[in-house]
Amino acid sequence: MENKIVMEILNNTVNNISDIDRALMLKAQKRLDNLTKPVKSLGRLEELAKLIVGISGKDDPEIKNKVIFTFASDHGVAAENVSAFPQEVTAQMVYNFLRGGAAVNILADHAGARVVIADLGVASILTPHPRLIERKINMGTKNMAKGPAMTRAEAIRSIETGIDIFERELKLGIDICAIGEMGIANTTASSALAAVFTKKKIEEITGKGTGICDVSLKKKISVIKRALKINLPDPKDPIDTLSKVGGFEIGALAGIILSAASHRIPVVLDGFISGAAALIAYNIEPKTKNYMIPSHCSVETGHKHILKYLGIKPLFDLSLRLGEGTGAAIGITLVEAAVKILTQMATFKNAGVSQKNEK
Amino acid sequence: MENKIVMEILNNTVNNISDIDRALMLKAQKRLDNLTKPVKSLGRLEELAKLIVGISGKDDPEIKNKVIFTFASDHGVAAENVSAFPQEVTAQMVYNFLRGGAAVNILADHAGARVVIADLGVASILTPHPRLIERKINMGTKNMAKGPAMTRAEAIRSIETGIDIFERELKLGIDICAIGEMGIANTTASSALAAVFTKKKIEEITGKGTGICDVSLKKKISVIKRALKINLPDPKDPIDTLSKVGGFEIGALAGIILSAASHRIPVVLDGFISGAAALIAYNIEPKTKNYMIPSHCSVETGHKHILKYLGIKPLFDLSLRLGEGTGAAIGITLVEAAVKILTQMATFKNAGVSQKNEK
Repeated sequence: MENKIVMEILNNTVNNISDIDRALMLKAQKRLDNLTKPVKSLGRLEELAKLIVGISGKDDPEIKNKVIFTFASDHGVAAENVSAFPQEVTAQMVYNFLRGGAAVNILADHAGARVVIADLGVASILTPHPRLIERKINMGTKNMAKGPAMTRAEAIRSIETGIDIFERELKLGIDICAIGEMGIANTTASSALAAVFTKKKIEEITGKGTGICDVSLKKKISVIKRALKINLPDPKDPIDTLSKVGGFEIGALAGIILSAASHRIPVVLDGFISGAAALIAYNIEPKTKNYMIPSHCSVETGHKHILKYLGIKPLFDLSLRLGEGTGAAIGITLVEAAVKILTQMATFKNAGVSQKNEK
Repeated sequence: MENKIVMEILNNTVNNISDIDRALMLKAQKRLDNLTKPVKSLGRLEELAKLIVGISGKDDPEIKNKVIFTFASDHGVAAENVSAFPQEVTAQMVYNFLRGGAAVNILADHAGARVVIADLGVASILTPHPRLIERKINMGTKNMAKGPAMTRAEAIRSIETGIDIFERELKLGIDICAIGEMGIANTTASSALAAVFTKKKIEEITGKGTGICDVSLKKKISVIKRALKINLPDPKDPIDTLSKVGGFEIGALAGIILSAASHRIPVVLDGFISGAAALIAYNIEPKTKNYMIPSHCSVETGHKHILKYLGIKPLFDLSLRLGEGTGAAIGITLVEAAVKILTQMATFKNAGVSQKNEK
């Protein structure tokens, strides 16, 4: 039985997601074409600027309040030794995020973004910290190789917790957000999710995560196959799929995407796991796709299949495979640059620059 | 007859270019491997950080003083109608740079970089401006379709002027620099230069620049063929090649690369024309290659051949084709991010994070 009050939050959010403003985007392209540069010579930066106009519904969007949601949670499937790192690292990295020593802290700072750190289900009780949002759904998911990772109610709650965290943070201002994560074994869950939706072979969609050896990769693949066989997730029911082979941080990040889209705020995606969250959000409401800005294509082999399935093209490929929101932080700096091009450059007329010859 | 005093500046600069510090780079990789992230999981950002250590010779490099050299000059070959824009646009854009309205101003500001604007040979007398460095070699080059673009003495002087501008700017501090340009018809000169060094067919290495039509492209190709046939530039003599089919801003940007390398300062390359400058610098002193950081791969078709010839891999491809240093400005933000990763992240030990299991 689904908790009806809880489902209401999700349903309301989904109902508030509308299409992006395509008329305003055409207007923005005209404006871009009058700036002192050859038409479309700033390529994807121009496309990005236009997209931000369409998403925000504003002629003169501003990228001031930048937020990276880095969500942590544990995965029962870690018991199958699918990761190169022990499970305790999830909690240890949360403390590292809180102290500002992790890669995402450095890159967020570089991008002028604040990092919102939440515990969605780390498998140990964390020491309270003023910057830690404590919203455990459970003490880690269950081992999906033996049964569902979580209940359906927990899956809904993870998504709605993401929505709730977004809406609380929105009061402090958000012009753009990005999603990232930490969770030992969460590439295993993400490969399973990606396999369900993209229908690619497990072998094609499963990579070495934080750096396992070839033998461990084979085991990881067989664990995922077992999880899918035992749980039979329904690809037409994203909440069912999330509950069977997902993770709490993945559900909550899907909630961030849904909530951001409902508030017309762009969401910069990070790597493979945030791509898995995007699959959940997209399958709940396909319109969310227009609000997603994929930052990079990860080394993790399944990521390119997720991006292809979603039909979105990453901005860059720097051979990253870290997660946390690191690639997305860099993506934010590109979006901000793009918007500044649109809003700050001189026009041919203002600058007294001759236009192209008629040819 | 070459001016001996002038050649001395170039020779001294070249003699001061040494190899990058590879021992220090190994040390930097060890440091990177101890940071709280899976080994090499930040891919090219880690490579970049290591390279900056090797270039600067510093364990703890800092990217504070960022400079983009945007050099302007005119090209006699514009008389052949090889560009979509009239020649007067070169001067008009210089004024736009000085007022801060051009794309490079916006993106430099975004990267926290200052733009150094110099006139190397705009074909009109520019109104003096406190931020304009006036170092005209001549009133534009001559039409290379009818004879050499410049004398050998002018070619040397353009390179040495670049060196001189760099050394003056160095007194204000430079941790990283980037090169960019403005000059109607300078893709024509760059295609000619690229053809000489890479030995690719003119058709393969010539693109539409600011946006000419197919008919104009054919004409542009035939103009370049004529210029090469008339001038017979010697690929073994980069100064000869520069003088026959180059440009003053291209020579001066080659000077920036040579000078930066001699002072162990990284140079971020922009698109096709800055790539042509890199070809000159590389053929004068191949060690300069290690100091070059290619930012993006341009839409301009010859650029990928230049990058391949130099054996350097661009950081991103955003379908840019503007020049000015715009792509390089974004490249600077990536290098800065990379260096912060190296110098600011916590180690496993400091953060109390468990390392990878032995597998």
